[in-house]
Amino acid sequence: MEITHIEHIGIAVKSIEEQLPYYEGILGLKCYNIENVEDQKVKTAFFMVGQTKIELLEPTSEESTIARFIEKRGEGIHHIAYATRNLNEALKEMEQKGVRLIDQEPRGGAEGLNIAFLHPKSTGSVLTELCEHPE
Amino acid sequence: MEITHIEHIGIAVKSIEEQLPYYEGILGLKCYNIENVEDQKVKTAFFMVGQTKIELLEPTSEESTIARFIEKRGEGIHHIAYATRNLNEALKEMEQKGVRLIDQEPRGGAEGLNIAFLHPKSTGSVLTELCEHPE
Repeated sequence: MEITHIEHIGIAVKSIEEQLPYYEGILGLKCYNIENVEDQKVKTAFFMVGQTKIELLEPTSEESTIARFIEKRGEGIHHIAYATRNLNEALKEMEQKGVRLIDQEPRGGAEGLNIAFLHPKSTGSVLTELCEHPE
Repeated sequence: MEITHIEHIGIAVKSIEEQLPYYEGILGLKCYNIENVEDQKVKTAFFMVGQTKIELLEPTSEESTIARFIEKRGEGIHHIAYATRNLNEALKEMEQKGVRLIDQEPRGGAEGLNIAFLHPKSTGSVLTELCEHPE
């Protein structure tokens, strides 16, 4: 598997609106997209930092995994997403190597990406996503 | 303040050696440096992913903040480090804007960088480091 760069870092927040003064006013980043991801029950806000995006994740329902994360651990860094060129191949390779997968097949994520999550049991407790830009 | 890219993502681990099969064998990254940072009481291992480094942090003492982090929260993502061109200016600007700083002045970090940490109280609970390559 070839990882080209870190696609994004996901950060769980209670409120995107409350975080904007820090990300825009203090860090000087620009929020270029806010998007609802219905099947994850989150609202997402994106900031570009070099090659990598900061993705703020605000739960839109108490059943959202992000709501449960915040309840258990508080706000903070939620996951890291690596960009790869061929997600299907990458998942097959992972499975052959004994990596536990959350998603057996790629599914649609924010910003039109194909994504799949690996299980933290196989990644040193770091919730890890693989992403592919659809051609 | 101008942030150019994400310099690194710090990940707290109990043992770098135990994590190498995942980062090298599964993700296909290459560990290009292992370094002790005495004043942080950590051993660090670096992997390049595009513009950004993954920095594994293994405590070398029970008094290390990384040991305490792992004890409290388990292994996982510890901090995010943004690269900036002028760290002194960035810290002054942060202070003027009311950001709580852990380091009032730049200090030496791993890989010869000048670094300073911001307080999670001011950053939405994300432990945040600013870095500058010394000229």
